[in-house]
Amino acid sequence: MITPKTPPGVMELLPRQQVAFQAMLDTIRSSYERFGFLPVETPVFETTDVLLTKSGGETEKQVYFVQSTGALQQNRKPELALRFDLTVPLARYVAEHERDLVFPFRRYQIQRVYRGERSQKGRYREFYQCDIDIIGKDSLFLHFDAEIPAVIHHVFTELGVGGFTINLNNRKLLHGLMSYVGVADAEVQAQVLFALDKLDKIGRSGVLDLIRSNGSPTTSQIAGVIEKLLDLIGENETTDQVLHRLAKIPASERPRQLDVGLVEITTVVEGLRAFGVPDERFRLNLAIARGLDYYTGTVYETFLDKCPGLGSVCSGGRYDDLASNYTKSRLPGVGISIGATRLFSQLLDAGLINAEGASTVHVLVTQMDPALHSHYFAIATMLRAAGLNTEVQIEPVKIGRQLKYASRAGIPLVLLMGPDEQARGTVTLKHLATGTQREVALKEAANEAKNMLAGL
Amino acid sequence: MITPKTPPGVMELLPRQQVAFQAMLDTIRSSYERFGFLPVETPVFETTDVLLTKSGGETEKQVYFVQSTGALQQNRKPELALRFDLTVPLARYVAEHERDLVFPFRRYQIQRVYRGERSQKGRYREFYQCDIDIIGKDSLFLHFDAEIPAVIHHVFTELGVGGFTINLNNRKLLHGLMSYVGVADAEVQAQVLFALDKLDKIGRSGVLDLIRSNGSPTTSQIAGVIEKLLDLIGENETTDQVLHRLAKIPASERPRQLDVGLVEITTVVEGLRAFGVPDERFRLNLAIARGLDYYTGTVYETFLDKCPGLGSVCSGGRYDDLASNYTKSRLPGVGISIGATRLFSQLLDAGLINAEGASTVHVLVTQMDPALHSHYFAIATMLRAAGLNTEVQIEPVKIGRQLKYASRAGIPLVLLMGPDEQARGTVTLKHLATGTQREVALKEAANEAKNMLAGL
Repeated sequence: MITPKTPPGVMELLPRQQVAFQAMLDTIRSSYERFGFLPVETPVFETTDVLLTKSGGETEKQVYFVQSTGALQQNRKPELALRFDLTVPLARYVAEHERDLVFPFRRYQIQRVYRGERSQKGRYREFYQCDIDIIGKDSLFLHFDAEIPAVIHHVFTELGVGGFTINLNNRKLLHGLMSYVGVADAEVQAQVLFALDKLDKIGRSGVLDLIRSNGSPTTSQIAGVIEKLLDLIGENETTDQVLHRLAKIPASERPRQLDVGLVEITTVVEGLRAFGVPDERFRLNLAIARGLDYYTGTVYETFLDKCPGLGSVCSGGRYDDLASNYTKSRLPGVGISIGATRLFSQLLDAGLINAEGASTVHVLVTQMDPALHSHYFAIATMLRAAGLNTEVQIEPVKIGRQLKYASRAGIPLVLLMGPDEQARGTVTLKHLATGTQREVALKEAANEAKNMLAGL
Repeated sequence: MITPKTPPGVMELLPRQQVAFQAMLDTIRSSYERFGFLPVETPVFETTDVLLTKSGGETEKQVYFVQSTGALQQNRKPELALRFDLTVPLARYVAEHERDLVFPFRRYQIQRVYRGERSQKGRYREFYQCDIDIIGKDSLFLHFDAEIPAVIHHVFTELGVGGFTINLNNRKLLHGLMSYVGVADAEVQAQVLFALDKLDKIGRSGVLDLIRSNGSPTTSQIAGVIEKLLDLIGENETTDQVLHRLAKIPASERPRQLDVGLVEITTVVEGLRAFGVPDERFRLNLAIARGLDYYTGTVYETFLDKCPGLGSVCSGGRYDDLASNYTKSRLPGVGISIGATRLFSQLLDAGLINAEGASTVHVLVTQMDPALHSHYFAIATMLRAAGLNTEVQIEPVKIGRQLKYASRAGIPLVLLMGPDEQARGTVTLKHLATGTQREVALKEAANEAKNMLAGL
């Protein structure tokens, strides 16, 4: 006898939780489709050649290699590995199918990715990523950067998890500001960005302490200029206040990157207002940077008002070239990713998702009298044909147990028909949560069930 | 520069094919939900302990083992492997979560599975299985075996791939018939079943040749009794003709298994008629067996009338005990599986699926005048809020190119608004396939678009 055990580091759900998780994925997918993104799926594994081109040491350590029995026995080097994100597969996909795709290429991809993480709470070895990207050929118009927050706004409104704030920034603007205050060295810039990224959590003094405590002579020398940078970045201001303040920097003193970044972010802000994203849902936050190398323009982070501790639940940005490892074509893009597994698990913990209220089944056709079983089967078929998700009681057990089952399983309606009703040509529909009970003609059962489900 | 290449043996689709494939999976899923099955997802890998319990040599050779970088470097034995079907994960899941599940447990699972097959046409190393199973505790009522063909009937009707025939049989009945004609030896029974399974393809004489050519003395001795068996099995008869013929075997001469099998299949046939499965869609076919060990009662195979060469596109049956490797509880079940990847790929080849007609996008909001871009963004937001999947033209290109793009991408409607229309407060909607074009008030655009999509 083998102990049945899920491998560590994965999220496996009971059916009703799975219904709730599936509803979350469906909402994300339909939102992505609402904005005209097309679906792509790639295989769970890529050849190691393709997959390990881009990744450095740390990522490579977390890769899961895949080998068939034969290859393993011959002690060969693995030729396949599980994808660790959806970006490398997208780059390979776009480069491979370049001639068959229309650019700008808008794709969504909702699949699981794999990381050989040490197993710990909140870290998954297998988790869903829900990505969208818009890929241009040679160039990609800036207004696409404004459409992405409109998608984020739609998704999180539809998910119904309360208020949220989309944080925007622009990497060129941030680098321009650093140049402006006099932080020019790339390594120091990296240290400053690392500290700045924590501004919301640790505040101004925390950021200054972090930079000072670093202890390198360069950084302690520049603590003064960091104060100036923090003044420019500001805190608790509206987007327009930040933009106005930055616009006051005399044109003659602005580094070129600052100029370009300011024009870009202003255009993006105007664009997302045109897309109807309300002002209370976004904020120009000059402190966010999202890593160092990949993003080159607009960046996004999204925080839930009710769960700030989750960190960003939807992040991304603009990049200059998606697939330089696989093609000579220049493919700039902009995109975001939602880590749905962690998001679901933490919303469940926070009580923002109710997995007990969910069932995909609308009606249970009960069995009052085993002799009538073929009638119950026919009624179930009638309800199913009318589009109602229907379970029919097949095993003859006491009616009380059937009702208790429906109630525990979250099935909203039960249909009852004993010999008396059958003689009258009627059935009784009962809404378990409200107790509403109605006897209707058999041929009206499907319509009446729909009414009762709609609360009529 | 690395050549971007999909690993061999997988099905990777272009976006419009992916839309069509996704539609197929959605149809299967919604049909499964229509019958009250609940979703389950399991991780792509299981521990090797769990996964390799049941499988024999051949299956084990086809397993993909999974190792993190660290484990690989230390040359450790792999602890994880990719699932090769959804049945072993289901057994592990039910045994592990037994106390949290309600029995009979109805679950559907639509996920990819992995086999280290030699790469060849029609054989995939990664493919979708779409499974349903109903698992009982200690026992499972026979009428569940009648509900399964009702699900098959619903799925393949909804898929819209033309006529199909659900072949039914019962393993007890088949073994009873073999005992009745005098084939008692288990090994010989296996040879007979193997040959019988080809009856539809190679006919009576083919089956007899196959059994004779086997050459073992036992089998050549029994060629005579096989003729008798083939008489009993019959060909081209209706289900009722077969049942009547079998019922004529005198009760005193019937082996017990034949008796039990006859009662079971008769009950199942009555049940599926009660579920409304029409007679032209199923057939009692005494020749099908579906392997040797796993199935113990009812078995199913499904053939498409237009593509008999595909073989069975949906198979399954009744089994006595799902999870004997993982739990002492007896868990009988009945289920089916659809191999969606192969089915899709072959329906596409056969022209029964049109991947060119499909798009998830309803409307393209074109850009007649770049100066009006913010108005186009607002119109897109209005259409999206009304539930229309909308792409908005963001890059300023010639209108002819925009229309050509929409047409090639399969987007049915375009919305046009130049300065004149804007001054009048109107937009023009054009249906690309029919050429219908209507100028309507801006605030009527969403409703009119829905009308035009509905062909009104």
